[in-house]
This record gives sequence, structure tokens and C-alpha cells, in this order.
Amino acid sequence: MDKNEPTTDLDRSIEKVTASTQSPSPHTPKPRSFGKRSFGRRDMPLRMARKTEDVIPPIGDSIRIIPLGGVEEVGKNMTAVEYKDDIIVIDMGFMFKDDDTPGIDYILPNTKYLEDRKSKIRGVFITHGHLDHIGGIPYIMDRIGNPPLYTRALTSIMVKKRQEEFPHLPPIDIRVVEKEDTILLGNMKIKFFAVTHTIPDSMGIIIQTPYGSIVTPGDIKLDHNDGIPTEAEEKEFGRFKNEKVLLLMMDSTNVDNPGFSTPERLVHESLDNIIKNTKGRLIIGTFASQLERVMKIIMIAEKYGKKVVVEGRSMKTNIEIVLAMGMLKVKPDTIITNTDMENFPPDRIIVLATGAQGDEFAALMRMSNKTHKYFRITPRDTVLLSSSIIPGNERSVQKLKDNLARQGAKIIHYRTSDVYIHSTGHGNRGELEWIHKKVGAKYFMPMHGNHYMLRVHEDLAESIIGMPKENIIVPDDGSILEIQDQGQKFVRLKESAPSNVMTVDGFSVGDVQEMVIRDRKMLAQDGIFVVIVSLNTKTGKLKKSPDIIARGFVYLRESQDLLASTRMIIKKTVEDTTRGMNPIDFDLIKSTLTDDIGRYLFQQTAKKPIVIPVILGV
Amino acid sequence: MDKNEPTTDLDRSIEKVTASTQSPSPHTPKPRSFGKRSFGRRDMPLRMARKTEDVIPPIGDSIRIIPLGGVEEVGKNMTAVEYKDDIIVIDMGFMFKDDDTPGIDYILPNTKYLEDRKSKIRGVFITHGHLDHIGGIPYIMDRIGNPPLYTRALTSIMVKKRQEEFPHLPPIDIRVVEKEDTILLGNMKIKFFAVTHTIPDSMGIIIQTPYGSIVTPGDIKLDHNDGIPTEAEEKEFGRFKNEKVLLLMMDSTNVDNPGFSTPERLVHESLDNIIKNTKGRLIIGTFASQLERVMKIIMIAEKYGKKVVVEGRSMKTNIEIVLAMGMLKVKPDTIITNTDMENFPPDRIIVLATGAQGDEFAALMRMSNKTHKYFRITPRDTVLLSSSIIPGNERSVQKLKDNLARQGAKIIHYRTSDVYIHSTGHGNRGELEWIHKKVGAKYFMPMHGNHYMLRVHEDLAESIIGMPKENIIVPDDGSILEIQDQGQKFVRLKESAPSNVMTVDGFSVGDVQEMVIRDRKMLAQDGIFVVIVSLNTKTGKLKKSPDIIARGFVYLRESQDLLASTRMIIKKTVEDTTRGMNPIDFDLIKSTLTDDIGRYLFQQTAKKPIVIPVILGV
Repeated sequence: MDKNEPTTDLDRSIEKVTASTQSPSPHTPKPRSFGKRSFGRRDMPLRMARKTEDVIPPIGDSIRIIPLGGVEEVGKNMTAVEYKDDIIVIDMGFMFKDDDTPGIDYILPNTKYLEDRKSKIRGVFITHGHLDHIGGIPYIMDRIGNPPLYTRALTSIMVKKRQEEFPHLPPIDIRVVEKEDTILLGNMKIKFFAVTHTIPDSMGIIIQTPYGSIVTPGDIKLDHNDGIPTEAEEKEFGRFKNEKVLLLMMDSTNVDNPGFSTPERLVHESLDNIIKNTKGRLIIGTFASQLERVMKIIMIAEKYGKKVVVEGRSMKTNIEIVLAMGMLKVKPDTIITNTDMENFPPDRIIVLATGAQGDEFAALMRMSNKTHKYFRITPRDTVLLSSSIIPGNERSVQKLKDNLARQGAKIIHYRTSDVYIHSTGHGNRGELEWIHKKVGAKYFMPMHGNHYMLRVHEDLAESIIGMPKENIIVPDDGSILEIQDQGQKFVRLKESAPSNVMTVDGFSVGDVQEMVIRDRKMLAQDGIFVVIVSLNTKTGKLKKSPDIIARGFVYLRESQDLLASTRMIIKKTVEDTTRGMNPIDFDLIKSTLTDDIGRYLFQQTAKKPIVIPVILGV
Repeated sequence: MDKNEPTTDLDRSIEKVTASTQSPSPHTPKPRSFGKRSFGRRDMPLRMARKTEDVIPPIGDSIRIIPLGGVEEVGKNMTAVEYKDDIIVIDMGFMFKDDDTPGIDYILPNTKYLEDRKSKIRGVFITHGHLDHIGGIPYIMDRIGNPPLYTRALTSIMVKKRQEEFPHLPPIDIRVVEKEDTILLGNMKIKFFAVTHTIPDSMGIIIQTPYGSIVTPGDIKLDHNDGIPTEAEEKEFGRFKNEKVLLLMMDSTNVDNPGFSTPERLVHESLDNIIKNTKGRLIIGTFASQLERVMKIIMIAEKYGKKVVVEGRSMKTNIEIVLAMGMLKVKPDTIITNTDMENFPPDRIIVLATGAQGDEFAALMRMSNKTHKYFRITPRDTVLLSSSIIPGNERSVQKLKDNLARQGAKIIHYRTSDVYIHSTGHGNRGELEWIHKKVGAKYFMPMHGNHYMLRVHEDLAESIIGMPKENIIVPDDGSILEIQDQGQKFVRLKESAPSNVMTVDGFSVGDVQEMVIRDRKMLAQDGIFVVIVSLNTKTGKLKKSPDIIARGFVYLRESQDLLASTRMIIKKTVEDTTRGMNPIDFDLIKSTLTDDIGRYLFQQTAKKPIVIPVILGV
């Protein structure tokens, strides 16, 4: 190397710094835990790891059940059922990021097990069109070899509509099924049954094997009168009298709530009253995914000669779909545009808007904080929040209510309303109990919920239904359960399918984001402090005062003294370290600098920024 | 400047980059909103701004009420009452950070109004010892000139105890008051009354002025039997018959809940049953601040010959205080250490632990995730979560329950328990109504709550109590309310006291953190991308390949192609820009680089890291 040529050691710099995150020195910020499981290790990302076939024993004559997602969380539902040479996949959901995954767009189930067995996958069955069941499709389908996708009509359109946002993807082979259909795939026969949920065309799935059936209703609640399920429910579930059900896999979302949940019918009745009687404009905030309710609201509005303005992209899309399919039949002028709104008195206007969760950019929030192009909330408006609060959204819903209250609107919300303005799509304990009894399964795997919910569901199956404890398995994401010995045994293998979280982060879809997420969390807490030192490699002296770049650390304009004293420390540390050193050991200088600067900044500010020294040899 | 000497332009670099956050180029990440109010502007931090006296009119003969915190949020309660030459301050709380303030330790009320009027402050009155009422003391007292602090005995010890953690601060002049005391301060007379809350020695405050009294109960609920307040409450509030109350300022936390809240007495009865009957070890998670309940649990344990192990620093501190004060009287061997625990059968062990909110490092979470030094949860343990969930903590409480369920513990929690295991410290609508009627105030200012809650409280006062609308003012933090014309008028001035949030961020306490917080949010989303270019200032060519440091952006090990192509872009951008340029315009190169790199990275990754170019002229 020409000694007169400026030199750098960037690549080492990056690696050094990154490595120091893994074995933190006392002055490197301690990364927070990223959940109980480790991600792909830096030195051996999972995608390069050996194939899962090398680790997981062959299936033999067992039926294998692998919940790839949705059993340690509410969201990213996906389950594989494998028998002989065939794999069937049920649902392909994603989950929104939480505090533990800053900057991430979505969290996906880990599909490595399926990627290694692409050729065995015969079909993907989607129970219904909610994102925790279809959200993963654009990211996962291609990875697992684009198998055919079976679902009912509405769901199929919703999947297709979403796929339009990913024009670079190969088309999906979607096959629309009817409730009465039977699909024969290899050694398995797949049948369907209708379930009550909050979106039309929700279906349960029955997988018939030589040893008995595997049943999952997907997301489910029951239509009932005071705890007595309706005729229609009785009829639908009557079919299980003649079905030898080996295994039931069921929704646990609301198992912790006693009794029966409010039937949607009662919500429709309350909405009918409110829509009929409200003076002034009525703005209804609800989930676009509550499609049955959305359709009902439009029909009620029409009944009372009112006009409906639809706000929010997902709401518009869903309504367009059900209109186009003929599932929603209303007069062409019932739904009007927001610019037409002024042609009608406020009493005749119903606004259906997204954003009841306080989403920052959704229609309702924009109306409430005066950033909506067409809407201003006035004291004559009534805002009905027809939804519960998803855990984690409490603060943003509070902000929404504050903003609405600031505009003087009358607010009716779930918690304080004395009429039913929302009901859940997931059955309470009493409903789950009824379904257990109707299905009469030998084995049980609770699904759709956090571990605690699954445990409560296990307890229900054991203590109320009377299942033997050994017939129930509470799985984790990636657990491999087997029904062995021609249906005589239900076990959990000691081996698991890979289950570290896969994320969607911009264009990057994968399972090796742990370092990046850790860094983001540390940056969010204490920021970054980059030091650039120009070092005369002959004398070991600094060529000039070091450069400092800091972001998210302290307010630099008011910290000139701190910057000046830190420059002194840097100069002293470097020149003390290089004294008598030949050749210059860049790594040693950098690790000493990282420690000295980190310690000094912590003493002075009680903050622990990520410290990155860059030494430029000149 | 010696042309052969390496040159840099760091200071400009920092400013340039920081400035670009304020007027973002199309490729600079758009900062998220930081709430409705702007912080101190970068070019004119508030602490350097003109004094508030120049902006806010003189007080004249009015009584001025300034809620400095606690009227746009639950937390950081602090209110100033000013009359003639005297100011009285009520409470001095802080608030914990939320998603909007990453890395921040605490949020404080803005005290600029008081800092400018130090010499008028006669005393600070603290209603009770909770952090949303005392948390700000160590950070604020010195700023407002260390006025005397008046409070009751327990609160005074809690304040002192906390002060020990800040040994560099001047001592506080604490004056312990009794309920019957009258304190004469300038033209105001201050009296107290006892209120029911969740911590002993909670007191309400009456400030008597020549025109009538200003009353606040602080945090309050009522002791009652089926909605009929007890004799003790009747007696305490009976005093207001003879008090001419001008203004009531009251807690709005639970105004949205109908009826009366569960009396703590019923919770004590349930706990008595549970403590008596639980087989195996009973671990009770609750707030250390629920001190009345904590004391009761220890007494019940003693009654049944059980031993209490206390876990968690705040829990230990609070129990030590009430023991030392003689407020809690138990035998010396009722409370044992965790090492003594093994000398007793599990049936005789009650563990009182902090962390029922799922706090990451609190005792209960450490027990649940096997990181506690002395405790392992077993399937024979029962864990009782005797607390509600503070909004925003839902996910961490879920994690706690999942972890506990994983260890097999039996979990009893608020939502599903059929007995009373928790009650709130803040009265429901029915209780507030009763207090309104007893106090019989002319004017009303709702406090302690988000804007929405204050509006609901306003509606209660208007529609149920029958107050004229113009006698009620819903304030914001920093609003200046005046009782004018000898009590005849209640108005809100158009001028406000400074109300931008003050934060505690490490050792830094102040109001100019907006830039830092914005940066942290952007870093948490998309990370940072620092580019170091060594430029031959004579030729305008790069001396070597540019150095890149990225954190929180993408996984670098798997992005070598991206780094290589970005280096090409950098080289091309710099050399295109410098062509024919003399002298070198560093600012132009940097802004062009920022734009080009940002655009390219976004195209390639859909991420928008903060891009910082550093040009070293050589």
C-alpha cells in the first residue's frame, strides 16, 4: 500500500462495529431482547443453513400438523397439514409490526419448512379474506412454488385485488370453490362448511384422511339467541355427527371471555336505530374488514332514504368488490361522492370511514385533525366508533377521540354506549364449548391466540369438554405435531420447523433482520455518534481535529462544550494508543476509541449512543 | 488554508444535515408529527425567548388558574393558582414516555411561566405521593427557586426518599401539614380535606381568597355501599356547606365510566378469601403505589399465619416507609426475605411483587421469563394480577401472561375474575356527580385527563349538575384562566403560558429536544447511512472508494451489491458535480449527494434512511 495514499478500513469498520453489538463492551448499549427466539445468526443466516430435511425425521405414515404462525400471537395465521407425499396449507396471513419491530412493514410466518418441500404442496386453502389470513400471500406464494389456491368467491376477489399491487409477481392459480365441493388432493379429500364471522364467504375446512378428519373452522363465532345457537348453526354443525373427527384446530381469540358474544344481529338493530334517529351528519368509523356490517349499514341507510359517503381506500375497495359481485344490492344513487355531499341536508348523510383505530393517516383521523381534503368535523356531527380497540392501539384511539372532541363532535363509542354498537368476530368461551361438543374431535390443538389464550382453551377442552390431557397439544409456531399409529397417538416431535420471524422491511423479505432491528431500537433510544479521525500513519498523530456526526443523541447546538471535550478525548486516546506503535493497529485504536468515547459520553449525558469510530490513515 | 492539509467541513455538515430535516428534500424522510404543538424552534429555543411577562398581561385583581400539565393527558399533573403577589403550586408530576418520545426518560410540565415568576411562588402543595403528582419535583423545584413544599407525612417521606437519588440537588424545605392546619400565604389561606384514594394521606386542597374558595380534591374516589357514600365521606364533604366555593377543579380519569367504582373494601374482602384459600404459593402482582392494598395484603397474610416476601424495589421502599412510620403494624417475622422462603411450606408464602404491567425488568416479568435470581414459577403457583392495564401496556401484559402460562402457573386476572381483585383509584361518573353536588362550586374546570375526558366531564357538569355552560372551561396545558371582577366572571385569556413539553433525557432536562426526537423516530424506521468521501480538492476526483457506515437500514452482509452500486453513484455524483468547479463548493456536493443517494437507496430498498455525506478535502 502506498503510504502516501489515504487509506481506510471501512469494511473492517462496519464489521467491527456490528460485531461489538453482539459482544457488548461495558460502554456499548445493551440491546433489548427481541423475543424469546433467536433470529438467524449473523454468521449463518438460516437461508444458508442446511435443509430442514436433514434435521427433521421423515414423516412415515403419520399425519403431520405444523402451525407456522398464529399460535403464539393473534395474527399471521398459517398451518400446514402433511400426509405421505402431500402437503396442504391453510391460510397465509401476516401481522402488523409492533414496538418490538421498529421500521418493519409486516411480520410473516416462517415458511422455510415449506420452501424445502415445495414439490409436495398440493394446495393452499384460505378460510376468509382478512389480512391475518391472506396478508402473506404476495410475499410467500412465490417462495413455496406457487401452488394452486382454493377459496370461496369473495375471498378470491380480495386476494386478486391485493395481488394487483404486486405487478412483478407471477399470477396465482386461484380456484374458486363452493361450500358443497370436495377437492381430492393426493391422499386427502378436502371439504368445507359455512361459518359465522364478520365477512361473507368465511368457511371452515375438513381434511379427510384414511384415519379420520382434521377440522378447522378458521375464525368463528355463532349466531344465537340468548346463548342458543340458531337453526342454521345447528344444521351446519349437524354434519359432524357423521364425521369421524380426529383433530380439531380452533380459534382461541376470545376463550377468556365468558358466555356467548353479542350476535352481530343485535348490532345491526342498534345501528338501524341510530341511523334512523341521528340528527345531523352521522359518521361511522369501523373496520373495512367488518364487511357484513359495512354492507348492512349501507342497506339501512338506503331504507331510510339516506345517502352514504365512503371514505378510506380499503373501505372503498371492499364495497366496490361486493357491489361488483352482486353481493350488495343497492340503488345506484345511495352511495354518493364526498363532493355530492353538499347537495343533501346533513340529516341524510351517513359517512362510512376507516380509521376507528386511530390510524394516523386513515380517513377518520384526517377528518379529526383537519387534514382531510373534503371533511371538517363540526359540533353538529355524531361520530360512532363501531369497533373495539385492538390491543396496542389504545393511545391512538385516545388521540382520535381527543381530536374529535376538540371539533365538538358527539362521540358514541364501544365502552360507554348502552346499546350494541360493536361485536367481535370471535366466539366467547360458551360458543367454543358448543362447537367442541358438536365436532366431537378425538384430539385438539388450540390455535389463533397468544400462548396464554391457548392454555385457557386447553383448560376448557380438558375441564369442560372432558378431553384427556394427553389428547391436547398447545403448540408453538413451528411445532411439528403428528397423529401416529393410524390415528392412535397424538404427539409433538422434539424437532421443530424453523420459526424465527420473517419480516417485510421495504423490499426486503427475509429472516435475518435481527441486527438491523436491534440497531434501530438502540438508535431510537440513544442515537448514534460517528467519529472520523484523519490519522498520520507515520507519526501516529491526528492530522486535524476529529469530525463528529451525531443524530438522535443530544441537541448538538447546545452541546458545543461536550463536543469540544470529546474531541480532546479522541485526540488523546488515539495518540496515546499509537505511541510507539508500528505498524498502526487500526482495530486496536478503534476498540479503544469506542470504549473511551462511550464511557465519556455516558458520564456526561447518561445516554449510550452507538459509537462508531472511522480512522482514515493519511 | 494549506491546500495539502486535509480539510473538513464538519460543522457545516452537521448543520446542513440537521437543517435538511427541517425543509426536507424529496428524498429526505418526512418526519412524523410530534403532537399538535411545536416545540421550541431551533433558531429560537424557548429558554432564550423573551420573558412571559412581555406577552401575558398583568394579573390585576383577578385570580389566575394555570393548569401546567394534566389537562391534555393522564399524568404530569401540575396547576398554579395566582392572586396578587402570590403564586401557589398544586402538585408536580411527571409522565412516562410513550411511542411519540423514544429514548426519553420522562415528560414534565412546562414550568417557564413559573420560572419567570419565581419570587412570587409562596409554596408547593402536594396532594399525595404518586409519581404523576410528585415525579417532577427533583427536576423542577430548583428551576422555580425551591419554594417551600407542603404536604402530609407519608407524602413528605416519599418525596424525601426520592430526593436521595439526586444528591447534587439543594435540600427541599418540606413542611408537613395536618389535615386541620391552615396555611396563610400572602393573600391566600390554604386548608385541606381528606380524600379516598389508593395511598394513605391523600388530601384535597381548599384555597381561600377574598372572593371565595378554589377547591381541588386531587385524585379521588368515594368509599360507598352500593352507590351510597359512607358516613365518613358525608362528614368530610359536609364542610362545603359552609364554604363559598368559587371554582372546583376535579379529576376526570374515569368520568366515562357509569355509576360508582368498586370500593377498595370489596377488593380487600376478595383478597382475604384468596389469601386464605389458595393452595401452593400465591404471587400477587400489583402497583407499589396501591399502598393501601399492599398494606392490607400484608395484614391479611399475617392474620392467616402466612409469610410475605416482597419483590421489587419500589414495593420494598414503600413498605419500609409505612413500617418505619408506624402506619403498618405487623410482627417482625411476617415479612421474610426470599432466601428464608424455603423454610416455609408454599401454602404459607405470599409474594408481593411489582411488574403487573409487564414492565420488562420488574420482579414479576423476571420471575416469568426465568431471569429472576431467586424465583422460578412452577405449576403449583397461583399468580394474581391485582391491577388493571394502563393504556399502552396491553402488549407487555399479554407477554407477561404468556410467560407465566408457559411456566404452568394458574393466573387470576382482572378481566376474567368473577371476584373483585382490583379497583380503580379514580371515581366513576356517579361519584363525580355526588362530589359536584356536595362542593357546590360556581365555576368548574375539569382536570386530570385527556381532552375527550374533560369534555365528557364538562357535559356531566352542564347536563347533570346544571351548571351554565359559560361557567365551565375545558383548558389545555398552559391555558390561563381568570376569575375576574371579584368572582363575577370566569374567562380564558387568549394568551397562554408556554406549554411545549419539557423532557428528561439522561441528564438533559429541557424543552428543545424536538430535533433529537425526530431523528430518533426516523432512525428507528429506516436507520442512517453515512458516506465519507475523500476528495482531491485539486482534481475534483475521489482519492479512494467512498466509505459507508450504515446502521438500522438493511442487513449489510447481504447487501454487498447495493453497497458497490451506491459507491459508484457516489463517485459519479461527486465527480460530475466538481467538474470545472473552482473552488470546490462542499455544500453543493453534499446536497447533491444527499439527494442522489437517498433516491437511489429508496428505489432499491423502499427504505429512506437519513443520508449524511461527509466530504474530506485532501
